[in-house]
Parts: sequence; structure tokens; C-alpha cells
Amino acid sequence: MLNVDLNCDLGESFGHYRLGNDETIMKYISSANIACGFHAGDPNIMRDTVKLALDHHVAIGAHPGLPDLIGFGRRNIEISPAEAYNLIAYQIGALDAFVKIEGGRMNHVKPHGALYNMCAVNPGLAEAVANAVADVNPELILFGLSGSALTKAGKKLGLKTANEVFADRSYRTDGTLMPRNLPGAVITEDVQALQQVIQMIKEKKVTTPEGKEISIQADTICIHGDGPRAVEFAELIFQSLTAEGISISAT
Amino acid sequence: MLNVDLNCDLGESFGHYRLGNDETIMKYISSANIACGFHAGDPNIMRDTVKLALDHHVAIGAHPGLPDLIGFGRRNIEISPAEAYNLIAYQIGALDAFVKIEGGRMNHVKPHGALYNMCAVNPGLAEAVANAVADVNPELILFGLSGSALTKAGKKLGLKTANEVFADRSYRTDGTLMPRNLPGAVITEDVQALQQVIQMIKEKKVTTPEGKEISIQADTICIHGDGPRAVEFAELIFQSLTAEGISISAT
Amino acid sequence: MLNVDLNCDLGESFGHYRLGNDETIMKYISSANIACGFHAGDPNIMRDTVKLALDHHVAIGAHPGLPDLIGFGRRNIEISPAEAYNLIAYQIGALDAFVKIEGGRMNHVKPHGALYNMCAVNPGLAEAVANAVADVNPELILFGLSGSALTKAGKKLGLKTANEVFADRSYRTDGTLMPRNLPGAVITEDVQALQQVIQMIKEKKVTTPEGKEISIQADTICIHGDGPRAVEFAELIFQSLTAEGISISAT
Amino acid sequence: MLNVDLNCDLGESFGHYRLGNDETIMKYISSANIACGFHAGDPNIMRDTVKLALDHHVAIGAHPGLPDLIGFGRRNIEISPAEAYNLIAYQIGALDAFVKIEGGRMNHVKPHGALYNMCAVNPGLAEAVANAVADVNPELILFGLSGSALTKAGKKLGLKTANEVFADRSYRTDGTLMPRNLPGAVITEDVQALQQVIQMIKEKKVTTPEGKEISIQADTICIHGDGPRAVEFAELIFQSLTAEGISISAT
Repeated sequence: MLNVDLNCDLGESFGHYRLGNDETIMKYISSANIACGFHAGDPNIMRDTVKLALDHHVAIGAHPGLPDLIGFGRRNIEISPAEAYNLIAYQIGALDAFVKIEGGRMNHVKPHGALYNMCAVNPGLAEAVANAVADVNPELILFGLSGSALTKAGKKLGLKTANEVFADRSYRTDGTLMPRNLPGAVITEDVQALQQVIQMIKEKKVTTPEGKEISIQADTICIHGDGPRAVEFAELIFQSLTAEGISISAT
Repeated sequence: MLNVDLNCDLGESFGHYRLGNDETIMKYISSANIACGFHAGDPNIMRDTVKLALDHHVAIGAHPGLPDLIGFGRRNIEISPAEAYNLIAYQIGALDAFVKIEGGRMNHVKPHGALYNMCAVNPGLAEAVANAVADVNPELILFGLSGSALTKAGKKLGLKTANEVFADRSYRTDGTLMPRNLPGAVITEDVQALQQVIQMIKEKKVTTPEGKEISIQADTICIHGDGPRAVEFAELIFQSLTAEGISISAT
Repeated sequence: MLNVDLNCDLGESFGHYRLGNDETIMKYISSANIACGFHAGDPNIMRDTVKLALDHHVAIGAHPGLPDLIGFGRRNIEISPAEAYNLIAYQIGALDAFVKIEGGRMNHVKPHGALYNMCAVNPGLAEAVANAVADVNPELILFGLSGSALTKAGKKLGLKTANEVFADRSYRTDGTLMPRNLPGAVITEDVQALQQVIQMIKEKKVTTPEGKEISIQADTICIHGDGPRAVEFAELIFQSLTAEGISISAT
Repeated sequence: MLNVDLNCDLGESFGHYRLGNDETIMKYISSANIACGFHAGDPNIMRDTVKLALDHHVAIGAHPGLPDLIGFGRRNIEISPAEAYNLIAYQIGALDAFVKIEGGRMNHVKPHGALYNMCAVNPGLAEAVANAVADVNPELILFGLSGSALTKAGKKLGLKTANEVFADRSYRTDGTLMPRNLPGAVITEDVQALQQVIQMIKEKKVTTPEGKEISIQADTICIHGDGPRAVEFAELIFQSLTAEGISISAT
């Protein structure tokens, strides 16, 4: 039976600020990427989100980001590989304390935002991040953009990796995501997004806007946790995959 | 043979800012309390300090503080026991990642500054901190002011605890430290400070400024890591204890 | 004709995080207290909020807080009067840049959260805050809890002050607010809250839960900007005051 | 008589952390660029540094940086022109409060570190920064790398600008600084650094490592405030310029 992982970035509230629909989204996903206090999240939120994931039997992953709360970790910051290594290690360790306290086990690591994007194309950073994950706990699964420098660096180290794909983003013929500032980069029609996901899982292919079919590995699908339609789309993709006979579970 | 632990707060640099004489102080101490990024320290500094401690065979402890970099964790902040629990767990976990990476083992936890002082007198906070330590790793030794609510809370939970004493601070007849703003609170004469330490270790007593002898348990002595005379005093106390036949090693 | 000021804390979003209903609330108030980046707000939010206030002809005030984003400035932090002075000056200056850029004029200053509460009862802090306001711009109106140490310190310096009252909080016989953790501290019935406000404005009195009438000066009424019923209550109080023949305008 | 400005970045301490030799350096410079709390500095340090500058009759400038304390504002962060505008305005305003309190007048603005470098080559950011300065106070002098996009943007707006040169850095034939990671980028010999400065002031030229003379405008010379030889070199350049008959005063 075909299987895929549905993952979502959660625990992105901070102090007095609330973000996302964590409690509802948990029903539809198999992996939660939990913010670790650098770009979002705080110790109280982290603990609550770990509990919530365990209650829903959702696999727990660290979602480390750049130290940029005001930019939500979405702005590139020039960091060295050594800095990347250390901030990844720090954040995995911090989250792991709560996972242990609540009796769980950390399953994976997915870098957030700008760090994710930088690691997708920068082999030096990718290697540093993969090394940090391997050194902290070699059992962790490294999530990265499908076909990216990050998953390659993880595989090279012998880490389990998960190739991540996006339901609502167009792909270019080289397998990279079309940048958000280009027309057609974001797929706004649910039907089209669902077709793309099912094609990626069943055929291991995706069709570019120019109509070309390219190969793609879809181990895990990223679901957005906030936004007005986040919950609705999470439910929709959950139901569509189930209807197609695709099971949803953590890698 | 009599034995005592010499501990020092280290890894208190941050980003571009340097603080302390970590490399030299390491020669004279048996336990390093490493800042965890809230009141001081950052991921890069934490990793370097862990390495340095391991190189010097110095026991490694987490030194978690309040989230107050500008106040260096020395200002009381009204936090709830749940918040204290979570910020302790977070910081222990973060440091532990580096300890594991470098092949070490975390030995102890000592709260920093205002958190240390608040836990010394507030049983609710003390219990929360002790619980966090026990829940993250029950093998960790909890350092607290000798006779404080913190060490009591630790013992009640079955944690190993270390009663901390100060060479350069006067004690009141109830066993608490004389507040820094009172005359005579800080002992500025080396000879007097050394005598106090040796009395505390050998006789389990300390003499108050009024000349009264009170009982005190001295498992570990706090050495200051910065200031113009820090290194000199560290060497002096190391030599004086050795000359008195007191061995220095981690608890 | 009777007149009162309606003020509200606004501009409390931060980076990616949204808080409050600033755009709608602006319609009903006469004074906006704009967060200045320490407990909430950031340079982008501050500029947008200043523009919004000017568009609605709402008087602009600085709403400086403690440097505690994670605690939203609601936790007491032990700061010295000199520190209070400096953080007030800094935040007023920062906001003033945007007020000038947008062609406005700053009208008032109201400390936020824990700083407001600390200044209400601590004459040393109150004096420091009043001095900072007077030194930066002696034309600014200092908002403080009615009858507090803060408004007293302001008056003593010759500053214009505004005594603030709360529609939804019970008062004790000494004129202070009943602490939130006591039963009856928060008035949850709209009718009762409106009656209290109208009594305070028309009779310069408020009735305590024990039924005693005490004197109170109500120059400005605090309206809450977030929460599920914030907009509804803002509209309600606006209409009720208008219906009572009380005009609403900045002090 | 030839005249030049000597400027230095000061007020870069933070909380408990000390940096630089502000008190001594003040004797030799004519302009102080004071950190504003984003990459370094805090409200207490800012006030003290403003006082110190006024005591030494040194012109006061704002030295705004990126919001990156851990990176000391030296790491590029992808910000939009609107964000650059707002963070410049915020920081100028904050510092200006202290300048007014102490009875001074702000003279100039010099962006710090990565922001300085980004503005030197990115016309969109340069324009945003220049606009912020002009909108807050059109009397302020904008400091930028000699011949950079920043000074050009300032001139275009009608701002007074000061072209900054470096004593200890090599220049390329296109007038830009040789990047620090290239050999020969930093001039380590005092004699050579002093010769370069005097050549730049007297002949309006600088000789590149390849021996080519290029035109350069030297309105203000940057002196480093920290490092083991900072004070010594500040004194040396002060004396050398004086001996050459070049007066030192703010632009």
C-alpha cells in the first residue's frame, strides 16, 4: 500500500502571541515540526505542543530556525557552517528535553524558513546541519526539500532522510521550487494542488507549468498550519489521500 | 581525606562580547557551570566551553538563567513555577546536546543569579526547578545555596544535591547570606575568605560578623570567574585547600 | 459639557504576529497608546500604527514597557529608577521619530503593564518615569492610574497628567484596583461596567463591591484592544457615553 | 587649512558586557557614532556615551545597525527598503531622546556593519536609509563609504554627506574596499596606514596595492575603538595629522 507522511510546522506561537490552529491540524497530520524558540516558539509553547503531538500520536520533529524572531526566521542571515551546526544542535537539544519529559521520542528534524532554503542550495551549510543532526542523534530523520543539497548531505552521512514536497507550489524543470515572486509559483486551486500531490506519490512525477513531467521523490508533504484555509485544506488533503488508497503515517 | 568541589560560572561570553577568564580558571576548579543562552552564553560559546571543560577534566553543569540578557539574569522577574520548570528544562536540554556531541556527560545543574536567589527562598519555584531537573535527568546533581529551599526541594525528590557556600560573603545567624547592600556583606581580605572556607569544610561551621558560630554544610565552593582578581584568587584558594590536605574534586 | 478621553493600547503586533483590532478600535477612541518595541511592537508596526492614528485623528501616545517580549511586559522586573528613566526616554524617542515623519505630534505617555503597576505604587520609579517624560518633552501628558504615585510624581514636576480609570475593574476603598486574582475584581457585565464609568465621570465617584462610594478622578478611560469582545465593548461605551451627553476627546 | 573628521564607533557595550575604550578614545576623535541598541548598546550605555561625547566636545551621531545582537550587526540580513527605513528611523529617534536630555544636538548618522556594507552597494537600501535620515531630521549629515551608493543617495536628497575612508584598509582600483578575506586587505603597518591617510587628505588620492593612484574623497576617517592597539593608534593618527598641519574637527 502506498504511504506518505503529512507534516506541518507547529508550536509557532510566542509568549502572548498566538499563531496557527495546532489543536485541529494535529488530527490530519502524521508529523509535527515544532519550533524551538529561535524564530518562533518558547519553552512553554514547546512543552504544550509536544504534549499535543503525543496525545494525537503524531511524530515529533525539531523545527530549528535562524535567531530572528522579528523576521520569523524567513530572512536569510549570513551564517557560517559552524554557526549553523551549533544553532541546530542547541535547538534539537532544547526540544528533546520536553520530548523526554513527556515520555516521547524525537523522530525527525526539519530546518525552518530561510535556513531550510539556504540548506537546500548551499552544500557547506547543508553538510553542517546534517552533521549536527547526526552528532546529536543519528536515529533522527532529516527532512529537506526533495532532491536538495540537504537531503543529499544527510544521505552521505548515512542519515535517514525524507524528501519533502509541496502541494501548493509549482516546480521548475530542474526540480527546484519556482520562487514565490514569479507568476504561477503558488497553486491556489485545491483540485490542482491535490492532483499534484497524488501524481507525485503515485507516479513519482510532477508536471511543471510548461507541461513537462519531471521525476520527484515525495516522502513527506508539507501542510501549512496557519492562514484562513489551513484547517480546511488539511482535512481535504487527508480525505483525498485516504480516498486514493494512500495511507498517511510518519516515515 | 576531606574533599570539596570548587565550582565556577563559565561560558558567559555572548556573540562578540567576551567575559571571564575561562581558560585559566579551568585549571583550578572541579565543576564548571555553563551559561545556556538566556542570561549569557550562545550556541557557539556553549560548545567551546563544553570542549574546554572536557579538556580540563572539569565536571560540566548547566547554569540556566532568566531570559534577561540585558540584566545578565540578575534581576528578579516574576515567573510562575510552570515557567521556571520549562525554562530550566529547555536550557538543560540545549546544553546537553553539546555535552553529548563532545562525548561528555552532564553532571549537575545550578540556577543562575536572580533565579538562584529566588529558588533559595521560594519553595514553589524551588520545587518546580527541582522537578524539571529530576524529569530531564534524575542523575543530575542539583546545586543550591547551602540550606536553601532549592536543595531541600531536590532532596525531597531524591535528587543528589550539593550545598554551595561562598568564600567571600558573610553569613547571617539564620544561615542566609548577608545582602550585598549591607556593610560587611562582602569579604575583601583574602586571608579572611580562605579562613572562612577552611572553617566551613573542616568544622562545618561559619562565624558570623557578630562572632557567632553557626552550622553550615559546604559541598561546593563558588569561585568567581570574572573581575580583576578572579584568576589570582582561584589559584590562591586551590593552593590553600591543597596545603590544608583538602582534595578538590567534583561531587 | 462633560468630556472624557477614551484610550486604548495599540500597535501590539510584532513581526509575523498579529494582535488586536487596531483599525476598528480607532473609530471609537480619542487616544492611542502605541507600543514601542520592548514588550510589543516593532519599527514597522509602530509606523503603521502612527499613520492609522493620524488618519483617525486620534491622539498619539508612547506606551513604553519593560524589555520583556516573551512576558508581554506584564511581569515585574526589578529595575532601578535610572534604568526606568532610560528605557522610558529611549522608547519615547523611538516612537517620536515616526510621529514626526508622519507629520504628527506626540500627545502623551502611558507606561505599560508591569511598569505601569510598579509606577503606581513605587514613588522612586514613578519619579524617574515622570522625570524622563519631562526631560524628553515637558508638553507630554503623563497617563497613570487615578490617584497613583505616578500621576502625583507628574504633577509635582509640573507635567500635565491624566488620571486613568477602568470600566471593567472593581475598586477598593483606598482607591486602588482590586487585584485580578480576587473574586469580583473584573466586572463582566456590560451594564455594570457602563454604569461605573458614567458614575465616575458624572459624580467623580465609584462604588466599591462593599457598597461604599469613594472619590475618583476620571480623566481618561482605558479600553481593551484585544479579546473576543473588544470591538463590541468599544462601540458600546462610545455610544453610551455619547447618549449620556458626554463628549469623547483627548485630554 | 586642511581639515578632516576623525570618527569612531562607540557605546558598543551592552548590559553587563563592556567593549571598547570609549573614555580614552574620546580624547582623539571629533565624531562619535553611538550604537542604538539593535546590534550593540542599550538605553543606559547610550545615555552615558552621549554624556561622555558632550563632555569631550565630540560631535554625536547615531550608529544604527541590524537587529542582530548575537552577530554584532555584522551579518547580512535580507531586509526590504521599508524595513531599513523603519529601523533607521527608530534608532535615530531613540538616541535623539538622550541627546536632547543631555542638552546636545545630533550631528550625523552612520549605519553600522552589515547595514553599512549593504547600503554601500545596494541603491534601493541606500535610498531608503537616506530617506529615513532626511525625514527624521534633514540637518543630519549622512556618513557612508567614500563614493558609495549611500553617499550618492544622500546627496540626491540634498542631505549633507561625509565620505568615509579607512586608514588600515586597502582600496581596489574601482574605489571600493578590498574584501577582508583577500591578502593585503588590512594594512598592519602604522607607517603605511598613516601615509595612506595623509595622502588621501592632501592629494585626494590613494594608492592601490598594484601601485595605481586613484581619486578618493576623505571627509572623515574611521578609527577603531576596540582591539589591543585601538587607543595607541588613535593617539598616533591624532598626532601625525596635527604634525602635518591638518586640523581635526567634525564636518
